[in-house]
Amino acid sequence: MRDACAVVGIGHTAYTRGTDRSVVDLHLEASRRALTDAGLQAADVDGIVPSSVADRVVEDFIRNLGIRNLGFSSTPHAGGSSFGMGIQDACMAIHAGVASCVLLPAGRLGYSSWQRASRIAENPNPAMVDMIEFEFPMGNVGPAMWFAQQARRHMHLYGTTSEQLGRLAVTIRRHANLNPQALMYGKTLTLEDHQASRLIVDPFRLFDCSLETDGAAAIVVTSTERAKDLRQPPVLISGVGTAFGYPGTSVTQSEELSELPGIREAGRRAFTMAAATPADIDVIAVHEGFSFFVVACLEALGFCPVGEGGPFVASDEIALGGDLPLNTHGGALSEAHVSGANHVIEIVKQLRGAVEPDRQVEGCETGLVANEGNFGNGAVVVLRRSR
Amino acid sequence: MRDACAVVGIGHTAYTRGTDRSVVDLHLEASRRALTDAGLQAADVDGIVPSSVADRVVEDFIRNLGIRNLGFSSTPHAGGSSFGMGIQDACMAIHAGVASCVLLPAGRLGYSSWQRASRIAENPNPAMVDMIEFEFPMGNVGPAMWFAQQARRHMHLYGTTSEQLGRLAVTIRRHANLNPQALMYGKTLTLEDHQASRLIVDPFRLFDCSLETDGAAAIVVTSTERAKDLRQPPVLISGVGTAFGYPGTSVTQSEELSELPGIREAGRRAFTMAAATPADIDVIAVHEGFSFFVVACLEALGFCPVGEGGPFVASDEIALGGDLPLNTHGGALSEAHVSGANHVIEIVKQLRGAVEPDRQVEGCETGLVANEGNFGNGAVVVLRRSR
Repeated sequence: MRDACAVVGIGHTAYTRGTDRSVVDLHLEASRRALTDAGLQAADVDGIVPSSVADRVVEDFIRNLGIRNLGFSSTPHAGGSSFGMGIQDACMAIHAGVASCVLLPAGRLGYSSWQRASRIAENPNPAMVDMIEFEFPMGNVGPAMWFAQQARRHMHLYGTTSEQLGRLAVTIRRHANLNPQALMYGKTLTLEDHQASRLIVDPFRLFDCSLETDGAAAIVVTSTERAKDLRQPPVLISGVGTAFGYPGTSVTQSEELSELPGIREAGRRAFTMAAATPADIDVIAVHEGFSFFVVACLEALGFCPVGEGGPFVASDEIALGGDLPLNTHGGALSEAHVSGANHVIEIVKQLRGAVEPDRQVEGCETGLVANEGNFGNGAVVVLRRSR
Repeated sequence: MRDACAVVGIGHTAYTRGTDRSVVDLHLEASRRALTDAGLQAADVDGIVPSSVADRVVEDFIRNLGIRNLGFSSTPHAGGSSFGMGIQDACMAIHAGVASCVLLPAGRLGYSSWQRASRIAENPNPAMVDMIEFEFPMGNVGPAMWFAQQARRHMHLYGTTSEQLGRLAVTIRRHANLNPQALMYGKTLTLEDHQASRLIVDPFRLFDCSLETDGAAAIVVTSTERAKDLRQPPVLISGVGTAFGYPGTSVTQSEELSELPGIREAGRRAFTMAAATPADIDVIAVHEGFSFFVVACLEALGFCPVGEGGPFVASDEIALGGDLPLNTHGGALSEAHVSGANHVIEIVKQLRGAVEPDRQVEGCETGLVANEGNFGNGAVVVLRRSR
């Protein structure tokens, strides 16, 4: 499927903390913006991948966008990896001739709904039954707790420090400060701020955690052939890979807490499809629910040796101007948490050469997006500027 | 994708009314049987399509079958069409090289769990919000009610009768009486029995309704190339099509209650891919939640003109020995309701020449399975005996 499909449209709502709008309304706005960006109409859409993270269904879009001839829909259920997995589904459908234009919306009332209710307890995910039965009673009830254990294990094995995670958060914040769309635009962060911020779950401090965000983002994927006639310079999907870790039901049951086998395998697949290596990547976006994800992800993808992710993310290599600019939009830590869709959008914009000049990675040809989901699964997408 | 993939393994549990086993346990038994049938191991599986109808997740299988290298999973959410849509997902993944061996399990505690709780009220499907808000308060709360309106409309327009539906149910029951696996094996049904049975929702009588079944069934799909080395004669997936109707959120909001636009469009796609027409079909299985589905489905697929489905299903053409033997296993009305997976299994067995001699369709080369889901979506699969 190398270069067979392309991202031709991107769109998002304002990212906010607090809204009166429904999540469907936000998804529809992002979808319409992505279609407009591509120069397409809703009637052109014949495939939709709804967001399981947002509990959305295809009928939301059929009905509200008035789509009368939808031929394809399927839904990846993989937490934070779902958006990247959906890109693979879209490519498969287009490659097979089952669909020609696939819409992928994502995003949640990540601020407003969490203020109101404990969603996990109300509507338990069957993948979590082990945790609900054996770990919830011990108090291991939320994402910050689960993933803090991964970070602590990495610190134990390799001497990774909170200060290194802090330097990562500061770099990502600096990028957000160049991005008017970012929730944290205009709010600076220093290492001292990070180190002085309150502990959420040891070792995660407040600024190690992604932003509770109300908002949505969407992309449109078509065949590369069709992309040539559309409004924007197409960004080719050169490689895509997905994988599910074992056992997949609990972070604590993974074989090595500090590693991400799903990302490793998804990356291997994506690099193989793209005929690329980490050395080819000019700009990268890692969907980081927590700062530590970046450390584990860069190790799993081979951007640095296992155990050396701490010093790597603390260095300027991942800053704008470095060898591997990372989360140049501000990521989930400082732009918004919309299930990683904004990470894809940022890489697409970088490859179009369409971001603000002071955060544009000059001459970038190849980008990568990594989504780490719950419990060892992963999705990796390699994107290329079309020539 | 014509003939690119094949069904290489089939398996199912006993079909019962009442069980102490969990739905996961049943899915695992069916999955293991399907793998054994194919001559494959769990370790060969690198793609899984879980059943949304059964609320299953991929982690159920990763963990319990010990699958360590799963590269693909996605989940169609389309009610009774989901199993057929999953076959398309499997073919897409194999065609794209994303997976090589995909497992598809289905089935519910259709008897036991419905005795215990109203699942719809506890865990509402977001696709049903219109119905929950505007139709549930008027008493339109269950599948028999929704689909009875379709049947009544067809009767109004075309003079279709309860007796015609009764003759269909009797034909399907006769087939079940030849199938020792069927829940209704050994239980005969006459037209008089049908006509005397109690009204569930006018015009549906008891014997117009599918069986509440505890059980599961599974199939394994691989590339046709790989299929050649496996245990069973491969059954080729010649064509597959899926479609979503508009608006998809309520039966009463569909443009013409008595028709199935999702099946019509899915059939068009499947026939086109297979380069086949209705005249090529030697044996057919229609996943019939209610008897009327068969009428509307045969019309939508072009096996008879719109409006003539009633006399057609009342005739011997759809019986063993007729031109278009239908639900030769006994279907959901008389074998079991396992979300249509048993319908696929029956067509595979017919094309293998592996059913009991007195219900084998002699010399059958091409079969079709149609799944009608909730509210106008549909999936159609055309299967061929490999030569």
